[in-house]
Amino acid sequence: MQGCQYIAAFLASKGIEKVFLMTGGAATFMIDAVGQHPNLDYICFQHEQAAAMAADAVWRSSGKIGVTMATSGPGATNLLTGIACSYFDSIPSLHITGQVNMRESAAYLGAAPRQVGFQETKIVDMARPITKYAVQVRTAAELKEALETALQISTTGRMGPVLIDVPMDVQQAEMGEFEVNHLGVVAPVDAVDIDGIARKINDFLALASRPLVYFGAGVGLAGEERAVAAWLAETKVPFVSSWNASTYFDHDLPNYCGCVGVYGNRGANFLVQNCDSLLVLGSRLDNRQRSGNTTQFAPHANTLVLDIDVEELAKYKSDGYTTAAFDFRHLPSVLAATQPPKSSSAWRDHVALMKKRYFGKHRSTYAENAGTQSPYEVIQRINALVNRDAIVINDTGAALCWFFQTFHRTGQTIFTAGGNSPMGYSLPAAIGAKVVAPGRQVVCFSGDGGFQLNIQELVTLVHHELDVVIVIMNNGGYGIIKQFQDVNMGGRYHASGRGYSQPDFRKVVEAYGLRYFRIESPADIKLEQFAVKGGVVLDVIIDQNTPIEPKVERGRPINDQFPYLSDTEFMEGNAFVTYERQ
Amino acid sequence: MQGCQYIAAFLASKGIEKVFLMTGGAATFMIDAVGQHPNLDYICFQHEQAAAMAADAVWRSSGKIGVTMATSGPGATNLLTGIACSYFDSIPSLHITGQVNMRESAAYLGAAPRQVGFQETKIVDMARPITKYAVQVRTAAELKEALETALQISTTGRMGPVLIDVPMDVQQAEMGEFEVNHLGVVAPVDAVDIDGIARKINDFLALASRPLVYFGAGVGLAGEERAVAAWLAETKVPFVSSWNASTYFDHDLPNYCGCVGVYGNRGANFLVQNCDSLLVLGSRLDNRQRSGNTTQFAPHANTLVLDIDVEELAKYKSDGYTTAAFDFRHLPSVLAATQPPKSSSAWRDHVALMKKRYFGKHRSTYAENAGTQSPYEVIQRINALVNRDAIVINDTGAALCWFFQTFHRTGQTIFTAGGNSPMGYSLPAAIGAKVVAPGRQVVCFSGDGGFQLNIQELVTLVHHELDVVIVIMNNGGYGIIKQFQDVNMGGRYHASGRGYSQPDFRKVVEAYGLRYFRIESPADIKLEQFAVKGGVVLDVIIDQNTPIEPKVERGRPINDQFPYLSDTEFMEGNAFVTYERQ
Repeated sequence: MQGCQYIAAFLASKGIEKVFLMTGGAATFMIDAVGQHPNLDYICFQHEQAAAMAADAVWRSSGKIGVTMATSGPGATNLLTGIACSYFDSIPSLHITGQVNMRESAAYLGAAPRQVGFQETKIVDMARPITKYAVQVRTAAELKEALETALQISTTGRMGPVLIDVPMDVQQAEMGEFEVNHLGVVAPVDAVDIDGIARKINDFLALASRPLVYFGAGVGLAGEERAVAAWLAETKVPFVSSWNASTYFDHDLPNYCGCVGVYGNRGANFLVQNCDSLLVLGSRLDNRQRSGNTTQFAPHANTLVLDIDVEELAKYKSDGYTTAAFDFRHLPSVLAATQPPKSSSAWRDHVALMKKRYFGKHRSTYAENAGTQSPYEVIQRINALVNRDAIVINDTGAALCWFFQTFHRTGQTIFTAGGNSPMGYSLPAAIGAKVVAPGRQVVCFSGDGGFQLNIQELVTLVHHELDVVIVIMNNGGYGIIKQFQDVNMGGRYHASGRGYSQPDFRKVVEAYGLRYFRIESPADIKLEQFAVKGGVVLDVIIDQNTPIEPKVERGRPINDQFPYLSDTEFMEGNAFVTYERQ
Repeated sequence: MQGCQYIAAFLASKGIEKVFLMTGGAATFMIDAVGQHPNLDYICFQHEQAAAMAADAVWRSSGKIGVTMATSGPGATNLLTGIACSYFDSIPSLHITGQVNMRESAAYLGAAPRQVGFQETKIVDMARPITKYAVQVRTAAELKEALETALQISTTGRMGPVLIDVPMDVQQAEMGEFEVNHLGVVAPVDAVDIDGIARKINDFLALASRPLVYFGAGVGLAGEERAVAAWLAETKVPFVSSWNASTYFDHDLPNYCGCVGVYGNRGANFLVQNCDSLLVLGSRLDNRQRSGNTTQFAPHANTLVLDIDVEELAKYKSDGYTTAAFDFRHLPSVLAATQPPKSSSAWRDHVALMKKRYFGKHRSTYAENAGTQSPYEVIQRINALVNRDAIVINDTGAALCWFFQTFHRTGQTIFTAGGNSPMGYSLPAAIGAKVVAPGRQVVCFSGDGGFQLNIQELVTLVHHELDVVIVIMNNGGYGIIKQFQDVNMGGRYHASGRGYSQPDFRKVVEAYGLRYFRIESPADIKLEQFAVKGGVVLDVIIDQNTPIEPKVERGRPINDQFPYLSDTEFMEGNAFVTYERQ
């Protein structure tokens, strides 16, 4: 068996069925082996970037690992933006790149010219900052070991993407027979002092009278979302979440109070700022959650952060947080060993008021005043029409913010590439999702700007007859940038409005063979549009100055969002603490 | 003056007029400063990859340096494939990326989590393997110095791309007044022992009776193509070239014998294999020139390679070549100090025969037999119609090979991103070329596969009303891969034919607002198509199995190309040496 056949056999033995790829000289042997394997198939994308984003979406949609193959040089570098999506959000994915023959490589010749073999590129060095493991293999033995090692590393601990670079001569090296590792993907869990951590949590919660739990994506990445949701239901402690976590529980849970952050729910933000004990479960508290000035985040609370990654905790040195690191697959055991926190009745009343006043309340005051279409009403309308098991994927910018501010998740899978947040993510991700979950409804949102970056994949969608609904939140430019420019650059819309261009989307998507609907009012969105076979585009016309509401502007704390509340309402939100408004 | 304004003032002071960009949060201050500067303007692309490829084309089209700006994270990583185009082909280009505020960075917090600031990404580490200089600046002083240093490094010695990563707080740092560096771009030339090098060349040529010069792109990169062409005209020594070099001289020169290599001209390849003295001027003799088995390249010749880069010469250790490294701006002085080489009359006769028999002779025996359209005739037809000062740009794959095998350059600028050779290069490169050379005709070629990767830029082209002719050599898949699969994989077209998809190009390009012409015969190509205002697409229908002819197949030397010659013709080509045919 040759190296390329070994790779295919390895992938199949791990239950992988589809490889996302675009061919190219140095990957041809591997791709041929995939094509010849009875239990593997491949999907050809029109740009490697899309293949990597689609692979990222595989785990998020199915819990299986996504796999790409690409050729050396531009094929490999085109993967990088997609790989970064997996890295920053801790998503497992496996990327296998072809490389020039070792005898044609610069290293082999003992010199350091920029390139020797055609399209020779140091992809391992380039990928290292955004992968858990990146290696070039030089022998049959190294290839064997790298495949097992890469998959292990990708799927255990804090998960993430891995890359194996395989020279063409290694693809053709004699490997011997393939032996199935019957263990499959082994996921060893580091032992942990459960009692010690539980004691730390108990000590922390014992002092609480205004407790709040912060539900992070780490809970779901460990597969422990049901156990944590059960604990939350039992303890009745109020909780908030990050966007990436919000796919892991039912938003109908009575103690769920919304997402936190710069674009967070006002009520959730008030609770963070007024709690006295904040227990963070597996969130990295990104700066879009705490705001750029982290000292203003939960300043009256003791904060205890639990996370799988010690480096995520090391960053809180100057914040004075208490921390504990352990593999979250122990989280149910840890929580079972804790005492439920006590809440004052005043806190319970305040939580109830904040939830009643702000949870599920979404308004575009701009659209109301201008008499234009509200993005919030559009998303609520779609929310009401999609299936309970739909996969709903988001891109970036204003379209992303509007979505996560509004969407009330019951059973759906909702996600975006939160930390990397590239424009153009949602369309290829939707293709990846539909390929691995063909029985589920798939809907993707993007802005008009983001939709363009991977528009070439419309043909991939049509070619494979994938039923995907694409929602373009079309505000004629980069709305989130305009909103920043309004505040910081005197409303000069350089490169966000001025100089930006978009095609006639109706003409382009119909040219690709998709159905097109122009949406000028939420009532134009109809259930039957979601049942059309093949690709459908809903082009949602939003006034170009429609802002994200609410939003924290630069320098303010998260409980003082634009549009600014009256002093009375602001003070009611901050019932337990005193804030000087800026 | 703030950091962002300083950057704009610096660019303008160096004569830069256009910045190619796509906006995003961390780049907004820099882009605003560019927009506000009276002598700068910007072009908005729909994907940063296209901006970087367009910037690469700026130098190739105008001799000026191309500049991009992009935001952190995906904005920056999207540049990488374009930056690599500049790196491998020694093209100067300057890339300025926005980065998160330093106080929001992982480094500032003294921890090593994957990411702290939103979209924080280690772009400097990722870009280092494909740039001459990549740096993140942390202070006003560092920014000032980095701008001058980067431009110097990019444009001197062996040129190449550079990257400066500018945190948002440095973009807003107080810089003081901008002081013009009246030296402009200073390009110091290292001193060199001209007599010593000339002596080496003289010693080398003194032994020659069958001399051959190899004209490399390094000659043109140093701006010394006219001097070298004059020396060649004067000495009458026969010469061959690489593809990247072939834009630097008039193909009508009587002693020019064609391009060398795997896809090279049969006559040029015979000359390389039969010469006794090969003088290489600034070519890195890439493996597509020497073939994968370099021991079979010019095996009967003494080879002297002159190059600017010592590392390019270090790789010849096992080849036994003589070498000398120096800045090619000394090349005219060096050549002036040499004696013209002597040729035997037998060699002169052989050169004349090879040129007569093979130079400018292009046939698709496949198309002749199948009665289908010959790509060679299409390119000759376009060659005859384009202006003498046109800029003609190429993509990759079979379309690229057919073009460089055929195009007879008189005054045109012809180029491709040779070493990186990414799919999707030619369309954004054509946009970059037309923006900096609006008075010249711009034509770009690509395959149907490559055309799709940056198809989103059709709107950029239309928005700026750029008159660009796009030629799609449409063979319904990846022809160059199929040709490889025919020989090496039993004709299984996995991911090159099977699984590949393309849209109806007529519908898509018309949807974007371009004119479309379907070309089924060279006679369908008309002069007036090149005079249409706005974008024009010529969709050239090529049978999907049309191969590249001639082509060296794996393991053979460059003088034994497919389709295989009769033994008689093969022996006539190899008149001076004995080859065992494989």
